[in-house]
Amino acid sequence: MSATIDFWFDFSSPYGYMMSERIDALAAKHGRDVKWRPFLLGAIFKHTGGQPFSTQPLKGPYSKHDLERSARFLRLPYQMPDAFPISTHQACRVFYWLESRNPQRAHDFAREVFRAYFTENQDISQVEVLQAVGAKLDIAAEAVAGATGDDAVKSHLREVCEAAIGNGVFGSPFVVIDDEPFWGVDRLPQIERWLAEGGF
Amino acid sequence: MSATIDFWFDFSSPYGYMMSERIDALAAKHGRDVKWRPFLLGAIFKHTGGQPFSTQPLKGPYSKHDLERSARFLRLPYQMPDAFPISTHQACRVFYWLESRNPQRAHDFAREVFRAYFTENQDISQVEVLQAVGAKLDIAAEAVAGATGDDAVKSHLREVCEAAIGNGVFGSPFVVIDDEPFWGVDRLPQIERWLAEGGF
Repeated sequence: MSATIDFWFDFSSPYGYMMSERIDALAAKHGRDVKWRPFLLGAIFKHTGGQPFSTQPLKGPYSKHDLERSARFLRLPYQMPDAFPISTHQACRVFYWLESRNPQRAHDFAREVFRAYFTENQDISQVEVLQAVGAKLDIAAEAVAGATGDDAVKSHLREVCEAAIGNGVFGSPFVVIDDEPFWGVDRLPQIERWLAEGGF
Repeated sequence: MSATIDFWFDFSSPYGYMMSERIDALAAKHGRDVKWRPFLLGAIFKHTGGQPFSTQPLKGPYSKHDLERSARFLRLPYQMPDAFPISTHQACRVFYWLESRNPQRAHDFAREVFRAYFTENQDISQVEVLQAVGAKLDIAAEAVAGATGDDAVKSHLREVCEAAIGNGVFGSPFVVIDDEPFWGVDRLPQIERWLAEGGF
């Protein structure tokens, strides 16, 4: 059992974005570190038969409404992107390429990718957009482009997705604390009590 | 727009049971009434293609765990029934038969049905079990049996399920306040703020 909190997410997950804006501070308050673990929800859905909520009858329209309300509830900026859902394997590859060199930089990059997508309506499936995000953190455009074609990184990302399935991850966000799994940003109150009381 | 809160649920929904134990007191605190509207989730799933969470890979095992934790979080007694999921059309029919005669009695019956199923492991798909629940409220066994075969009630239940779809209801529990829809017992904090602030 690790004191570190695992935060699994897909970069195209709006509820994942909301969790990304809350989990670090909540963990820090209780002396915990958070390991950010982006993965590809599409790879999981192939395994589970799951589908993006946005395409489901009744649930789709509700979810768009619920997302805006949940952002207001959490007092977070939020804008549903025009391009949705999108492929996030390029963003993941850049993340893991950075992580193998400088975990803090990878973390900062991930935060900015989420914000670019969910507050600035930028299509983060595009390498040029990822390069622009990287530029804010002084990451060279060539490094970003190189990461997206890096075979070791591709292989590592596949392993991460397999590890997600192995850990029972079926959605985003998915937070694991002391082997206890929490699915969804709406589990924040339970996470908070878990951290405060050491389980309940 | 009605000041009354609509509480849609299926009697076999564990999160619906949890909502049933909280929504009345929360509404009363803010001067609101709650109309309980049991429906058949199976009828909705035929329309939406939805599936019970309990049968889905990864999500199924997680959900069983999450249900127990959520009950502890809400400090509610809870026991996953051996028979699950079950058909709840008989319970619905008795409910609406009672409601047409005495709404308060229907409400009390619904509460007891939920408790029998989720705290006493009683199979509420069985008419004898519904009769035993009714007996606690001095409802005659013959009246319960009669309600389950009542053509007017059957027809009314079909209308309720169509109304659920018409109102965008796709899961249980589903709470509608001032035309604002809230799906899931995990929306209780948002419901509370909505009632306190008149929307947000």
